[in-house]
Amino acid sequence: MSGIEELRVNGSRLWDSLMEVAKIGATPAGGCNRQALTVLDKAGRDLFCQWCRELGCTITVDRMGNIFARREGRDPGSLPVLTGSHLDTQLTGGKFDGVYGVLAGVEVLRTLDEAGISLYAPIELVVWTNEEGARFSPAMLGSGVWSGEFALEQAHAITDTGGCTVKSELESIGYLGARPANARPARAAFELHIEQGPILEAADIPIGIVTGVQGIRWYDLMIHGEACHAGPTPMDRRKDPFMALPPIQTALYSLTAEHAPWARVTFGNIRVEPGSRNTVPERLVLAVDLRHPDPDVLQIMDAAFRKLVDKHASCYSLEADIRLEWDSPPVSFDEQCIEAVREAVRRLDYPAMEMVSGAGHDAVYLSRVVPTAMIFVPCREGISHNEVEYAEPAHLEAGCNVLLHSILACAGSDRAYHAIP
Amino acid sequence: MSGIEELRVNGSRLWDSLMEVAKIGATPAGGCNRQALTVLDKAGRDLFCQWCRELGCTITVDRMGNIFARREGRDPGSLPVLTGSHLDTQLTGGKFDGVYGVLAGVEVLRTLDEAGISLYAPIELVVWTNEEGARFSPAMLGSGVWSGEFALEQAHAITDTGGCTVKSELESIGYLGARPANARPARAAFELHIEQGPILEAADIPIGIVTGVQGIRWYDLMIHGEACHAGPTPMDRRKDPFMALPPIQTALYSLTAEHAPWARVTFGNIRVEPGSRNTVPERLVLAVDLRHPDPDVLQIMDAAFRKLVDKHASCYSLEADIRLEWDSPPVSFDEQCIEAVREAVRRLDYPAMEMVSGAGHDAVYLSRVVPTAMIFVPCREGISHNEVEYAEPAHLEAGCNVLLHSILACAGSDRAYHAIP
Repeated sequence: MSGIEELRVNGSRLWDSLMEVAKIGATPAGGCNRQALTVLDKAGRDLFCQWCRELGCTITVDRMGNIFARREGRDPGSLPVLTGSHLDTQLTGGKFDGVYGVLAGVEVLRTLDEAGISLYAPIELVVWTNEEGARFSPAMLGSGVWSGEFALEQAHAITDTGGCTVKSELESIGYLGARPANARPARAAFELHIEQGPILEAADIPIGIVTGVQGIRWYDLMIHGEACHAGPTPMDRRKDPFMALPPIQTALYSLTAEHAPWARVTFGNIRVEPGSRNTVPERLVLAVDLRHPDPDVLQIMDAAFRKLVDKHASCYSLEADIRLEWDSPPVSFDEQCIEAVREAVRRLDYPAMEMVSGAGHDAVYLSRVVPTAMIFVPCREGISHNEVEYAEPAHLEAGCNVLLHSILACAGSDRAYHAIP
Repeated sequence: MSGIEELRVNGSRLWDSLMEVAKIGATPAGGCNRQALTVLDKAGRDLFCQWCRELGCTITVDRMGNIFARREGRDPGSLPVLTGSHLDTQLTGGKFDGVYGVLAGVEVLRTLDEAGISLYAPIELVVWTNEEGARFSPAMLGSGVWSGEFALEQAHAITDTGGCTVKSELESIGYLGARPANARPARAAFELHIEQGPILEAADIPIGIVTGVQGIRWYDLMIHGEACHAGPTPMDRRKDPFMALPPIQTALYSLTAEHAPWARVTFGNIRVEPGSRNTVPERLVLAVDLRHPDPDVLQIMDAAFRKLVDKHASCYSLEADIRLEWDSPPVSFDEQCIEAVREAVRRLDYPAMEMVSGAGHDAVYLSRVVPTAMIFVPCREGISHNEVEYAEPAHLEAGCNVLLHSILACAGSDRAYHAIP
């Protein structure tokens, strides 16, 4: 296996396979609408399975429709290295989100086959079901069941807006497999993905070594005032919840600045009751999304948020309360998996930066049960979940090379998580 | 007519008549639901007409259903003095809004009859149709047509949510009159009303001498950002329209403080696009209601508003635009009518304050075509358009006395707008 350091994927073959799958559910605006468990999703899955069979892989499908394409190792009893992502898209999705991570795995296998390389450990390419959550909520459903976050029966019973269940749609497209949808031990798992944010592009760096995923807390902040007529009521006699809003929002933006660069606050929506143009509102309900990769900092931000709301609401004699709607703790990826990615980047001599993912991925759930890391490549202007989503072929090739060498580092030797000899 | 200075209305008779009409459409929560041109509105109108006929008045109804009950003067050729308001209510309205001004007029006539006083000029009590706008939009429809603001045919064609037109409902309750719904000259018009705000109660003053009505401008402020994912997008790379909102709202509150006590700003509603919890909004649309009684100050506020929006939006590289949705210029009531009210208050020795109305009233439209003023009395906690609306009998009596003496000042002599000799 000497000279394996020189091994590189075929970037144009990778691009061609991406463009081939992008035809399935192509939209006039240049994106993809290939929602989970539709006939288009089936077509994408079928093509993936066909390519993997041509590579000699064994295909199995579990009860959640997750597909595992296994390339046997020299020691079939060894734990496998997993890599994969998802093939489903948003309604107005792009050509790269998810599918890139899947097809990069196919390209890795093609590269190994072409070079006649047999690895010590098996490799399993995985397609996770319904990552987007666009058709069936919640998102990351297949990886969530596999990792024990959701119960299989509950996941099967989820319906789309037309009333079709996950189970009936799995049956309908022929992907209700026999294999239990339970986690099995693995040496390592890697997920390669477009960044879906602007950091790498802005830094002009092709590779992100993803060390974890931000913690996310979703809140509803309610500020209770007193409805009154916009005309006759003097300003100083109002209990106007909008009076407390500017200082609260300003303080929250300052709070993220204190914990820059990773802290985030987003106000995605606000509801005004009763919402009449000439009535001082009785109540505001503001959606607050706070994020930070460090659980301690996120906790500090949570406490500061509660304190500043109390302070500013009481300034205006208003009542406020905060309801925590969702709490997704930060994820730290496996140190040895991250080190395998770092080593691959060093070997390939690519500019790279370490970063945390702001968005959720299948890797979040996987990381609870197997050693996991992620690799990011830039996407244009950070735009994703959008038909104009685009990534440079050179970046996609570079990311795929990093995936290849990360896998080699973990699967090439009988010593897990160690560079090949 | 000596001793007329001592003339006073009968407060308990006024209260009884208010409670009598409040039975028509009474709600379990103690309010009234007597929407315009319903059978309940008809019942209220019929009772009013019956009481006026008992007082010897001549009743005429115009094409908009406005009712005029005329008490003849010593000189039937003299211009009349008008007083009145409306009998219709909100869906969950109170027992005083509108009906107080109508029944106070009845009480004035009863008091004059009882004292055997004949005045020089005729007095016409008026019930204006659909002041609330709760069933048929817009509000102040009857007085608006009479004053030339709306065309009769258009007003007739307005439908309620069930598709019934104003005209068909006027016919159905027997109040589609023959008289043209056009303004006729008058010596003066007075509208007595509960304040619908907290100023008089807070100052513990029973009488408001209303010198005008605030100017109102309704705007839609649009702030345009760029939608992006709440997770991966660093704070300093966002075009988040919410970043510009706090300084804009704060500056607008400061602007009203600069023009205290009459300036008002109200944010009654806000729309967030796309309104997804984990997406930085692409656009905010904030409803802004600016008010001031002085047209020059309102214009200064308008200019300052536009300037501060530009300033704060550009700080965050955001585009903003302002759309003027409605412009209702300030109204200054007739100086001689106001003086008649002042003189009545002095004679009665009531504590009083001069004020502007924050809300619209039939008197706004009347003031365009006849010399007009308004009189306010306190209502509890300033609450109106609400079943708990309440006014003290003593305040209602005081307001009615002010109305009586204002009318005497204008109708008692052949010199218009001059105190009786």
